[in-house]
Amino acid sequence: MSPEEFRKAGHQVVDWLADYLADPTQYPVLSRNQPGQLIDALPPSGPEAGEAWDQIFQDFERHVVPAVTHWNHPGFMAYFANTASPPGILGEMLAAGLNTNGILWKSSPAVTELEQVALSWLRQWMGLTDEWFGVIHDTASTGVMHALAAARQAVAPEIRSTGQSAPLTVYCSEQAHSSVEKGALAIGVGQPNVRKIAVDSAFRMRADLLEQAIEEDLGAGKKPFCIVPTVGTTATASIDPVRECAKLAQRYCLWLHVDAAYAGSAAVAPDYHWLLDGAEQADSLITNPHKWLVTPVDLSVLYTRRPEVLRAAFSLIPEYLRTAENPRALNYMEYGIPLGRRFRALKLWFILRTYGRQKLTEMIREQISWAAELSKQVEADPNFELAAPQMLSVVCLRYKGTDEENRAILDRVNATGEIFLSHASLHGRYVIRVAIGNLGTTRATVQRAWELIQQSALL
Amino acid sequence: MSPEEFRKAGHQVVDWLADYLADPTQYPVLSRNQPGQLIDALPPSGPEAGEAWDQIFQDFERHVVPAVTHWNHPGFMAYFANTASPPGILGEMLAAGLNTNGILWKSSPAVTELEQVALSWLRQWMGLTDEWFGVIHDTASTGVMHALAAARQAVAPEIRSTGQSAPLTVYCSEQAHSSVEKGALAIGVGQPNVRKIAVDSAFRMRADLLEQAIEEDLGAGKKPFCIVPTVGTTATASIDPVRECAKLAQRYCLWLHVDAAYAGSAAVAPDYHWLLDGAEQADSLITNPHKWLVTPVDLSVLYTRRPEVLRAAFSLIPEYLRTAENPRALNYMEYGIPLGRRFRALKLWFILRTYGRQKLTEMIREQISWAAELSKQVEADPNFELAAPQMLSVVCLRYKGTDEENRAILDRVNATGEIFLSHASLHGRYVIRVAIGNLGTTRATVQRAWELIQQSALL
Repeated sequence: MSPEEFRKAGHQVVDWLADYLADPTQYPVLSRNQPGQLIDALPPSGPEAGEAWDQIFQDFERHVVPAVTHWNHPGFMAYFANTASPPGILGEMLAAGLNTNGILWKSSPAVTELEQVALSWLRQWMGLTDEWFGVIHDTASTGVMHALAAARQAVAPEIRSTGQSAPLTVYCSEQAHSSVEKGALAIGVGQPNVRKIAVDSAFRMRADLLEQAIEEDLGAGKKPFCIVPTVGTTATASIDPVRECAKLAQRYCLWLHVDAAYAGSAAVAPDYHWLLDGAEQADSLITNPHKWLVTPVDLSVLYTRRPEVLRAAFSLIPEYLRTAENPRALNYMEYGIPLGRRFRALKLWFILRTYGRQKLTEMIREQISWAAELSKQVEADPNFELAAPQMLSVVCLRYKGTDEENRAILDRVNATGEIFLSHASLHGRYVIRVAIGNLGTTRATVQRAWELIQQSALL
Repeated sequence: MSPEEFRKAGHQVVDWLADYLADPTQYPVLSRNQPGQLIDALPPSGPEAGEAWDQIFQDFERHVVPAVTHWNHPGFMAYFANTASPPGILGEMLAAGLNTNGILWKSSPAVTELEQVALSWLRQWMGLTDEWFGVIHDTASTGVMHALAAARQAVAPEIRSTGQSAPLTVYCSEQAHSSVEKGALAIGVGQPNVRKIAVDSAFRMRADLLEQAIEEDLGAGKKPFCIVPTVGTTATASIDPVRECAKLAQRYCLWLHVDAAYAGSAAVAPDYHWLLDGAEQADSLITNPHKWLVTPVDLSVLYTRRPEVLRAAFSLIPEYLRTAENPRALNYMEYGIPLGRRFRALKLWFILRTYGRQKLTEMIREQISWAAELSKQVEADPNFELAAPQMLSVVCLRYKGTDEENRAILDRVNATGEIFLSHASLHGRYVIRVAIGNLGTTRATVQRAWELIQQSALL
């Protein structure tokens, strides 16, 4: 494909995307494909000779698009909703074309320095001081694995030199994201040594039980190394008592990692700085612009106040990558596993500039207000109840009936194609979650979701 | 930014990219920026109010582009050269706009099934049977960490249940990529337990010393768990004796992981199937389409014949992500750390279709022939010598002089802006590497590189 053929195809794709962005509701949010349908529609083997773009793009529209679940749809309120905003897409286009790879500073000063710039801007908006060093990962799952490796390096450095130590233990609430457990397993923590601390009635980690668990483990000859409170849990957006966790981390010399993957973004609004109360004492913190800051996946940020420990956990610097030392030439590869680094900072920089702090703040405030409104409506409806206190832009609700009835309501709502909701399990009960976060979502979309939930309950 | 504003800006970006692709040589390959120059040129804080796209794009051109090292430049012959081909860029554009996220099948059937399709096509071209299950990671570094975790799960499953075992040991050659060591450290292997086996005169792992090391470690009460031969090492593209490694892996019940990150792509050419001789017995294998298959970063493929072990190492399935079971609905999140998955398969599918196996095979054969030609020229020049046997598209050469003289030659070549080369250290000596791999590189580009090397030696 020549540059001129690319120009033609590129304009066609831009027009397709502009039409898509103008009206994603032309598609059902949740794909109606059956498992295997796309596979069965495509040839079992690749072509020997090259094919024409028109044919390929036709197949994209005919076979691939129907298999897409539309995260960029205003009716997407499952998991944590997100958005590929226009400046984010433009950033990805340029990053793909330049294809510059930030293995080390020299291999792409732009990747390295724009990442420093964009993460510094974001950090300031979140109210974090300049002690915090940031690094972009694909997802929070990868980031927390790195944070846990740094925590291990801080508390049990003997593992790097011998591969041995007393059994490590890590603490999070029973509402923590599965990635904490997965990251711990990856670095070699035994599954029973991932302690899931019980929560209070608002789904917040109980600090008293946390302390008790640490004491028990110490008594059993284990080696506590990390506490992971969550600011904005996956099911209910509950907020763990970070300050109390910080006190315990300090007392027992443990690493404190704050999982703010979802809710950290809200701290760009000055009136939500309180979300990170206590986090200023943490060793590391994750927030995902690809969740609530209108950034196309993937872009998760791991911040740490102890970059030297992260570096000690991961640096190797083989000879063939060694470059002359310059204190301003940062080599990000020393701070994590991936060597290759896409130019992800570009899309974030475009987004921060296009919207400015004001527009992002407005969006977050509005979305939270729609969640608050919905939660009042749920409380006012005798057939429904809130399943958790409404926090930020997440509402967990339940039809006052069986789990089966709630599951049927969810399936009916999702079958409309207008709205896509997911569920959670709270106190062993099936709960419907409404998670607001797409830039295209309006008050009317949320109200329509509520209408569909109510109607589905009457069927 | 409205959809119509996006349309306008998108067309502008496509034109910019088409011009860029038509002549990347308008830029020096290696950025001439000084460390900190881009940071210093940008404001220390992000804007409160949003800014206009024209202003942002102007700053991109003025400040960001000069900070770019142009991996998409035909004169890029450092590390392993790569390409963002036009269909790859189109794939990234659509993936960014759709922003669909393959956490599990339901969250995006398209991401999941197109990944299965594209990786099956690629596997077939590489001569791998349908036993091989593929999963996309960002980089080979992330992939090998996952392979090592699977190897541990296979050989020492007690670690998942207790966090304890005899010290694990892993084996690779002293020419293996640093990611093997980094991945091993991440999962908790002690650094001295990453055994770097010496190589023969052609930089291939010595199987006799490998066997000896395994025996020594067993005698010392350690627990060997994995052998990692490389097909196409980073410095010289040498090829370890995979079949002999496979025999030892079988005899000692170890996992065999083949690192074919660079050279695996060459196996799409039928006359290079031999590269993977013995790999049919491996447990896992990595190849990076973002190295030699004209795919924009990032896209690395981890193949395994034992997906059930990979799954056992990583699966958790929290309740809030549980969906109804259907054997055809694959949930990739169970096979690795990241939950979120970009739609990376789309660009690969576009590329495999646009070029077909023939065009990719031609490109690889041609590039290898240019490397072979260059190596003969080096041998014929009394001032230069080959520093390693020429393998595939990599030539390691040396001016018959001091390390300082060789370093000076490299610096002079890179300062021209026409060509970017990197170096390696072989037998303790500084070596100049010419790594051919960009789709835009021609025989003339390689000859120009040689001319510049020769001229720089005379200065």
